[in-house]
Amino acid sequence: MPDTTTPSATPSATLDLAIDLMGRASVTPADVGCQALMIERLERLGFHIERLPFGDVENFWAVRGHQGPVLAFAGHTDVVPSGPESQWDHPPFAPFIDDDGMLLGRGAADMKGSLAAMITAVERFVTAHPDHDGKIAFLITSDEEGPAVDGTKAVVEHLRETHQRLDYCIVGEPSSTERVGDVIKNGRRGSLGAVLRVKGVQGHVAYPHMARNPIHEAAPALDALAREHWDTGNDFFPATSFQISNIRSGTGATNVIPGELEVVFNFRYSTELTHEELRRRTEAILDAHGLDYHLDWTLNGEPFLTAEGQLVEAAVAGVEGVTGERPTLSTAGGTSDGRFIATLGSQVVELGPRNDTIHKVNERVRAADLDTLSEIYEAILTRLFAHLD
Amino acid sequence: MPDTTTPSATPSATLDLAIDLMGRASVTPADVGCQALMIERLERLGFHIERLPFGDVENFWAVRGHQGPVLAFAGHTDVVPSGPESQWDHPPFAPFIDDDGMLLGRGAADMKGSLAAMITAVERFVTAHPDHDGKIAFLITSDEEGPAVDGTKAVVEHLRETHQRLDYCIVGEPSSTERVGDVIKNGRRGSLGAVLRVKGVQGHVAYPHMARNPIHEAAPALDALAREHWDTGNDFFPATSFQISNIRSGTGATNVIPGELEVVFNFRYSTELTHEELRRRTEAILDAHGLDYHLDWTLNGEPFLTAEGQLVEAAVAGVEGVTGERPTLSTAGGTSDGRFIATLGSQVVELGPRNDTIHKVNERVRAADLDTLSEIYEAILTRLFAHLD
Ligand SMILES: [Zn+2]
Ligand SMILES: [Zn+2]
Repeated sequence: MPDTTTPSATPSATLDLAIDLMGRASVTPADVGCQALMIERLERLGFHIERLPFGDVENFWAVRGHQGPVLAFAGHTDVVPSGPESQWDHPPFAPFIDDDGMLLGRGAADMKGSLAAMITAVERFVTAHPDHDGKIAFLITSDEEGPAVDGTKAVVEHLRETHQRLDYCIVGEPSSTERVGDVIKNGRRGSLGAVLRVKGVQGHVAYPHMARNPIHEAAPALDALAREHWDTGNDFFPATSFQISNIRSGTGATNVIPGELEVVFNFRYSTELTHEELRRRTEAILDAHGLDYHLDWTLNGEPFLTAEGQLVEAAVAGVEGVTGERPTLSTAGGTSDGRFIATLGSQVVELGPRNDTIHKVNERVRAADLDTLSEIYEAILTRLFAHLD
Repeated sequence: MPDTTTPSATPSATLDLAIDLMGRASVTPADVGCQALMIERLERLGFHIERLPFGDVENFWAVRGHQGPVLAFAGHTDVVPSGPESQWDHPPFAPFIDDDGMLLGRGAADMKGSLAAMITAVERFVTAHPDHDGKIAFLITSDEEGPAVDGTKAVVEHLRETHQRLDYCIVGEPSSTERVGDVIKNGRRGSLGAVLRVKGVQGHVAYPHMARNPIHEAAPALDALAREHWDTGNDFFPATSFQISNIRSGTGATNVIPGELEVVFNFRYSTELTHEELRRRTEAILDAHGLDYHLDWTLNGEPFLTAEGQLVEAAVAGVEGVTGERPTLSTAGGTSDGRFIATLGSQVVELGPRNDTIHKVNERVRAADLDTLSEIYEAILTRLFAHLD
């Protein structure tokens, strides 16, 4: 029987704040006071706060310091829905530390644990270096998991319009796989989606010469798209990949040749290509197959890469100094708000806890990992902003 | 303004009976007394009646004569639904002859007009040749337009089990295109359907190496099936055709690689091939593409052909004698109950009125064409069964 009265993890300021944040059911785009909690702590440290609500999304931008490069911690207070509560070992919004020292609850890994680690890291750093070099900032949204239109994207537009500088950005997304800090994401692939509609001529299967079957006409073109060698990737990115996610045609009747085929596909692409090139090459392949088609494109995010520079060096050295293990740089995985921040010309890395339970029931993180993460964030701050004290 | 009190068509026994039948809303599988009306007329001519209800379908088999070959008139008393009554110029089950001499109403062409023409043809023939050669029969169902399981198919099984002979069969389906009798169908293509399920491995579009996309894997196989030259047809049949009627894969989410693809396809095939060969060749193509798949086959009907013989000769000569025009033989179009009757080894032709309005609103047939059709049926009877009187 687990002894629920004696948590195995040593209480810490980071854990306390993580538990405070996790107790608030801030399912996208709700914030439920999470940002107020962070703002209260940051104001106490002398941060200047700019609240930036857009639509029903709460955001804020906070800055401390007077000159030099700006390092922002970026993250989100919103979480994905819990899913069926009955499948959780404990209620998803009643955070709990089990006998194995695991902190359970929605947002433990994605990413209230990171938010708490950022705050406590900055608290210790500012206490030790009240007149630090550079400016420390926070870019926090309550819609990263949702449409992500009125969140980081809108804040970034505001920063651009008000000519605010953003040199380095640490996004708290859970980047680690086996041990906290083992992977730093220094880029992400681009994501380009499309809905393809191929037109044919509807008819009866008994009279195929009076119809044109869009499935038959599209099959070789879809095969060509699936086989196309879009690029070979590069040192930082795997080869660009094309995937059809949905295909649909036909009325259900078995004797009718359908008049239209709908295909939904997605590119995850490297920095070797632009979305304009992908569009042009896709259309060339469809044209070469003589299809009568219409394409609706959606650019979900352009690829970004922080190949090298002070931020990557500080992050790698910071992790190695704290954990003794040299982290791997990776650009794998889906998209993140880093895609918006990178458009400011910032160096961007993602560095957070292990991601094996995110978006699942019983989301959890090793409680001690949050203290380690806080130490890593502090070590990065120290490398970038403490040397001139 | 049409003068609805003065029908332009000369009243006739055939028209009277057609109107009696069309006034009954016998939407599949309802019969609404149509068969009783026919049976009453046939009993008066000395036919022996065998009522053969199966499930909720009414059928009958009627025979007159003592020896020699059996010629059956085959048909159905059921009709397809009327569709929106408001779109009809007259109520679909209140038959009406307009100023142009057109008989309007559901079933006018498919196929209560033919049923009436068969009955009156037989009445005149039997009156003129009471001791005719051969046996005259009727094979009538109330489910040709529906599932067609408890209709002609079941009656044919009964005939097979009771060792009843069926040498010649005239199916009253509307075979004519421009003028009544211009086309006789002397066969139909086979119809073989299948549901193909191609299995892949579901995954996230950002991690394609951990998934297997069944759409990508199936595309070249579907292309190969669509391009395959199954046969070249023969003198009576066009080349076998393959058509995909439905395709479906994907959850709707744009970032998920689906785990399964479903494809529904259909063959219309000539007598140059068997359904076993089509199955074998289809599976060979799927196997050659290394697909993990499951196929569910449905044989809707095997092809049949009455290339030549006494029935075709009598039908062609009968039409030419009545209309002065030599009919074309054709195997085009969908399936009919002829596919079941042909399995008895019978010679089968389909011969009926123009088919341009069947299954549509304002179904209609030239009233005078029904008299012509009745004369054609009588002429065929005369050629086959009157010569030994
Ligand atoms: Zn996140
Ligand atoms: Zn019919």
